[in-house]
Amino acid sequence: MSILSVYLASSLFVVTLVWFLFGRKKGKLEKLLMCWWAFSGLTHLVLEGYFVFSPEFFKDNTSCYLAQVWKEYSKGDSRYAGRDSAVIAVEGITAVIEGPASLLAVYAIAKGKTYSYVLQLAISLGQLYGCLVYFITAFLEGDNFATSSFYYYSYYIGANGWWVLIPLLISYRCWNKICEAATNGVETKMKKKIR
Amino acid sequence: MSILSVYLASSLFVVTLVWFLFGRKKGKLEKLLMCWWAFSGLTHLVLEGYFVFSPEFFKDNTSCYLAQVWKEYSKGDSRYAGRDSAVIAVEGITAVIEGPASLLAVYAIAKGKTYSYVLQLAISLGQLYGCLVYFITAFLEGDNFATSSFYYYSYYIGANGWWVLIPLLISYRCWNKICEAATNGVETKMKKKIR
Repeated sequence: MSILSVYLASSLFVVTLVWFLFGRKKGKLEKLLMCWWAFSGLTHLVLEGYFVFSPEFFKDNTSCYLAQVWKEYSKGDSRYAGRDSAVIAVEGITAVIEGPASLLAVYAIAKGKTYSYVLQLAISLGQLYGCLVYFITAFLEGDNFATSSFYYYSYYIGANGWWVLIPLLISYRCWNKICEAATNGVETKMKKKIR
Repeated sequence: MSILSVYLASSLFVVTLVWFLFGRKKGKLEKLLMCWWAFSGLTHLVLEGYFVFSPEFFKDNTSCYLAQVWKEYSKGDSRYAGRDSAVIAVEGITAVIEGPASLLAVYAIAKGKTYSYVLQLAISLGQLYGCLVYFITAFLEGDNFATSSFYYYSYYIGANGWWVLIPLLISYRCWNKICEAATNGVETKMKKKIR
């Protein structure tokens, strides 16, 4: 239980920091998005990065917090303890590519960069693809990797569900924003021609 | 050898058809892209779709062409014959989502739809993610799934290489096009304010 509290408390700390430090002059939705990308990026980099590059975490007898996290999470999906190659591949891509990219998204929103929407869309689609591979491979192998249905629903479904739901919403929004900009571009060109 | 010839000949037929039927009033690059998406979409839907939904293809004793294709390809990657779950997950996503989406991309380019670039970017990133999972899982499991180095380089590397190289180029182009449109949008807004 204390493992989860540390994660939630440090996430709350990061979110609060981003909200008050970077969020000046920004709308509420943009502030929320910056908090999501900071939280998501640090989870990818720190937690998932540790998992990918620590093949021996299950043998770690020290009280290393990150090893404890994955020992605990493995109750919901034993493939983490068994170093399943599909899980490592997805976590590797998430940690190495999507982690830094998420932090870049915080910066892009803060500075109002033109690549902000397309970057957010790309990361969200990557997160969705990762979750699809993660869930489909488990399903194909019998969907029997949790120690109990409590851990199945709270860790395997509950923890990952956020990375399906929120990327879906963000992809939808960014897709529309990008198409709007394209429509405006076409209209501007046509107006120029008419003149 | 005849298996590959049938694939190449029917691909050539599709490409020629798209080039001459849908390509009127279009630039060369757009014609080429439509050909790529038609070829890629049909490969995803027909070839990869057959693989995903035919778990017993290896026992098929008829001369069914699609079964022959996968028996032949398995010489380059035996995980196809062994129904590896990561391979099925990636091929399933490719066949069910990216296949129809690629054909939609042909239509979107032909009709000059505003979602054309963002759709092409999304599919290309999906193809790249799929290839990453495909290659990383093989690497993690010892990278020893080909019957000989000839089949390793021609089938496993050679055939898949195109779906790394071309999506990379298309993603790069679409990303830039989307950012251009966003920049123009910002400029138009600023001009309006100045006026």
